[in-house]
Amino acid sequence: MKKYAVIVAGGSGSRMNSNLPKQFLLLNGKPVLYYTIDTFLNAYDDLEIILVLPEDHVAAGQEIIDAFFDYDRIRLTEGGRTRFHSVQNGLQLITDESIIFVHDGVRCLLSTALIHRCYDAAHEFGSAIPVIDSKDSIRMITEDGNEPLDRNTIKLVQTPQTFHSKILLPAYKIDYKDKFTDEATVVEAFGLKVHLVDGEEHNIKITRPLDLEIAEGMFKPDKVKPPTTGKGDTKTV
Amino acid sequence: MKKYAVIVAGGSGSRMNSNLPKQFLLLNGKPVLYYTIDTFLNAYDDLEIILVLPEDHVAAGQEIIDAFFDYDRIRLTEGGRTRFHSVQNGLQLITDESIIFVHDGVRCLLSTALIHRCYDAAHEFGSAIPVIDSKDSIRMITEDGNEPLDRNTIKLVQTPQTFHSKILLPAYKIDYKDKFTDEATVVEAFGLKVHLVDGEEHNIKITRPLDLEIAEGMFKPDKVKPPTTGKGDTKTV
Repeated sequence: MKKYAVIVAGGSGSRMNSNLPKQFLLLNGKPVLYYTIDTFLNAYDDLEIILVLPEDHVAAGQEIIDAFFDYDRIRLTEGGRTRFHSVQNGLQLITDESIIFVHDGVRCLLSTALIHRCYDAAHEFGSAIPVIDSKDSIRMITEDGNEPLDRNTIKLVQTPQTFHSKILLPAYKIDYKDKFTDEATVVEAFGLKVHLVDGEEHNIKITRPLDLEIAEGMFKPDKVKPPTTGKGDTKTV
Repeated sequence: MKKYAVIVAGGSGSRMNSNLPKQFLLLNGKPVLYYTIDTFLNAYDDLEIILVLPEDHVAAGQEIIDAFFDYDRIRLTEGGRTRFHSVQNGLQLITDESIIFVHDGVRCLLSTALIHRCYDAAHEFGSAIPVIDSKDSIRMITEDGNEPLDRNTIKLVQTPQTFHSKILLPAYKIDYKDKFTDEATVVEAFGLKVHLVDGEEHNIKITRPLDLEIAEGMFKPDKVKPPTTGKGDTKTV
């Protein structure tokens, strides 16, 4: 089935103490966003990318595309007021039946194996939300203090949040609510449950200078980046 | 007031794919446990360390102490069946009124500033549990699927979990229960609430090979390690 990756890169970069928005910061000499796009393009030959950027950063995004990629598999559109509105803008470019990945541009260390896992699960169940366990104990702030939660029941949520177009496109016709913090919450408001899959420890968000240091510590191409010819585990559907 | 740091290092290292337990793995040429001990010793001149190690690792722990430290501020004792029992063993060496830090040996990147913050809060409120926000959305597994939690109410729990001896010593007379995943849950079972303080992003647990890479990425002495003479912010009590 046809595949689209809606890559949302809306952050202003204020937490990075830099005028460059964080998705344009350099990791081993290339912009963070380069790695994100490259991994999705390598995951499937028939995958197209819809890159959603704030108006002010469209030119910088275009430069990355021109420098590194074949333009015919990547479209660029402007983001909106919130993540919800940015994803909504990106989805307007999709009309055909497909599997749609929605991914944080700053999660640049995901593997093609994770993309394949999300595709397979979304194809079978309609949705695939990658999650990992917490290594730390978890507490919840309550009205009169705080209390422990059972760590075994808690999951930390990553992207790509992946859906069948028959679910995601109608779900995004809904009116915006503040509680829409990710795509899963929108689909749940549409009345559906979401299916969880195993995420990846190294699939971190790069939003602070510390994260860039962490990413550099983790960035070993033989470990993190899959081989570009690694299509062997692509499920034929 | 007198200070004790009970440093618990009970892990077998199985997740590190190494015969060496993880607290003895080398970070920039020195054992992880070295940094943990060094930071506590630097935090306060009148702080003593009680190092709790599995029987099999006592000799390796003694070697670290002999190689790097003044033995008169560090005592070594054997751990027990669970973290609860190990902490209980360590606390048996403390009889005087004091502030007690209980810390994961594998969290070697904490700062003296965090230790001071925990001391001040435990002195004022009886307890201090360092926590940080989650950067990821959070979901809870339920009987019929999963649901989102409000990320603003969720905290990830770190150590040093810090208490006044008047609270921690009697609390640890309790019988063991499986729900005792950390010291805070023991103190709560004793009937008290715990006070939260701000933790630190870089105060991570080193339990997997990936964590060692992350720690190496973060390990910039001028950023992570406080100056050894940095006692200016020690609160006089």
